[in-house]
Amino acid sequence: MPRTIASEEDLIRTYLAPLARAHAGASDLADDCAIFTPAPGTELIVTTDAVAAGVHFFPDDAPEDIAWKALAVNVSDLAAKAAVPRVYQMALSFPDAPTHEFMQRFTSGLAEAQSAFAIVLSGGDTDRRPGPMTITITAIGEIPTGLHLTRDRARPGDAIFVTGILGDAACGLKLRREDADVRDWRLSASERSGLVARYLRPEPRLAAAGILRQHATAAMDLSDGLAKDIGRLAAAARAGAVVDAARIPLSPAVARLAASHPDVMDLALSGGDDYELLFTAPTIAETAIAEAASSIGLKVTRIGTMSDQRGLRLSTPDGERPMQPKGWDHF
Amino acid sequence: MPRTIASEEDLIRTYLAPLARAHAGASDLADDCAIFTPAPGTELIVTTDAVAAGVHFFPDDAPEDIAWKALAVNVSDLAAKAAVPRVYQMALSFPDAPTHEFMQRFTSGLAEAQSAFAIVLSGGDTDRRPGPMTITITAIGEIPTGLHLTRDRARPGDAIFVTGILGDAACGLKLRREDADVRDWRLSASERSGLVARYLRPEPRLAAAGILRQHATAAMDLSDGLAKDIGRLAAAARAGAVVDAARIPLSPAVARLAASHPDVMDLALSGGDDYELLFTAPTIAETAIAEAASSIGLKVTRIGTMSDQRGLRLSTPDGERPMQPKGWDHF
Repeated sequence: MPRTIASEEDLIRTYLAPLARAHAGASDLADDCAIFTPAPGTELIVTTDAVAAGVHFFPDDAPEDIAWKALAVNVSDLAAKAAVPRVYQMALSFPDAPTHEFMQRFTSGLAEAQSAFAIVLSGGDTDRRPGPMTITITAIGEIPTGLHLTRDRARPGDAIFVTGILGDAACGLKLRREDADVRDWRLSASERSGLVARYLRPEPRLAAAGILRQHATAAMDLSDGLAKDIGRLAAAARAGAVVDAARIPLSPAVARLAASHPDVMDLALSGGDDYELLFTAPTIAETAIAEAASSIGLKVTRIGTMSDQRGLRLSTPDGERPMQPKGWDHF
Repeated sequence: MPRTIASEEDLIRTYLAPLARAHAGASDLADDCAIFTPAPGTELIVTTDAVAAGVHFFPDDAPEDIAWKALAVNVSDLAAKAAVPRVYQMALSFPDAPTHEFMQRFTSGLAEAQSAFAIVLSGGDTDRRPGPMTITITAIGEIPTGLHLTRDRARPGDAIFVTGILGDAACGLKLRREDADVRDWRLSASERSGLVARYLRPEPRLAAAGILRQHATAAMDLSDGLAKDIGRLAAAARAGAVVDAARIPLSPAVARLAASHPDVMDLALSGGDDYELLFTAPTIAETAIAEAASSIGLKVTRIGTMSDQRGLRLSTPDGERPMQPKGWDHF
């Protein structure tokens, strides 16, 4: 019989308090509140995202991966603001007391993510209640006062960029779900596991902060699919966008698949979970952005141009066509 | 047929964005992140509490009351730090799309609570998922730098105080649940509704901030019952406490009940949901505290004394007996 955790005190003291040790204001989680002192001359960026078993992750995902993703999706929002992560609050709810093994693995995944993103647990809440296991995180980051980026200041003519590559995570999700249509995908074992890993372990693009602060007119992270998210960015700017299909950055595996499976290209355009950054900048900055990205080893690709004509268009070898702002709806 | 809300956008734009209008950094909730600028010379106090239908509130409670309580239990933690509430993040999850009527009433309760506590919505997350409706709030308040109160600095000999009156909320919960043993309580209709209201609508004691900053050695809010919470305060201070049963502040209705029903006195000692403040201060400050409390119309009662002998004791007309640190366990 796997041993389950006997009490809230045990859960907090044994598993959660070690994650908060590096933040003195967390008082080892022995207090209801955390104290947090912002650095002088900074503003705070605050973001909240919840993930639930069966909705945002699979109940049988590795506990390390569940933890990583819960924190990464929040830190990705901070990355889109070019913010420096500082602390996070975490509310955990379990339908049944978790096992010691689950909590060991879950907190080891959190510790790994904390270290990768330079953020630390400051406090939270734990509860037992019916329904799926849920992790609700509020992450706090800092930016120099006055330097905050929004998603509504893209201008017609601005170049549109994305970090990393798109579509891997959406393909990874289909593989993870073992959808019927993946049977003829003919991927190697390492391609499969690579795509699934991109779904399970998104990498917030914190490294882009310098580029965003220096050049970006607007930025957001890609969580609900390029088409839907670029639609939001364009709508916020009261503008439109033209995306060049041939420039969408794809991994070799997805590019090969997309050539024979048109629905895979749709995944790259509309599938969610990329957690790459989407940003705009004046076209004049394109070379400087490319050089800065190259110098830090971050892939950044120009995929299109903002337009003063409202709506989204996709430019393909067969001509331009409307791009539907479809994607993941949370509700 | 009651009309349900069609989309996340509708929920956010129609019901939640108006709650965030007073905070410019919330960008009308059109962004994944909020921007928050702490006042110069302040530190932040951050707290997270989740409430769920069937666990922390009744699914058929008035939506206005559910909203009030969800925010109040968080603000009560800020009050225990003598902090000034500023903004909160709210993650909402619903098993089914709520009706327009529910959201109208829920957000009107939140608006009322925001106004009472001088706090404003800055951002959050909404999701549909199985399980009970859940409201997870992270509230942020400010204190002057260096003035933060903790729960671990009570000293032997310090006087122990509570604000308000205890036990009403626990009696209100029993009435709300229609427990069998309340049938012989013989309360008037207005006593009943008064006790239930104290359970449904806790009042965070923000008014105590001045007294706490000037005099308190330690403070916390009473959410899980006096006995359990005073046990935590004493344990954090590596000390003990003697509580004088006769001094526990009771409402007339509960005092009358307690005289004939010993279990009602237990409710005042161990029932939760009071959301009053528990604090300690040097005995020499007792008069000054009484005067300050009286001048702002806040009831503050000395209920006991910290002791260098570990453990909790209850002093009664029949002598001293150990006080069990029992109360609500979340897990």
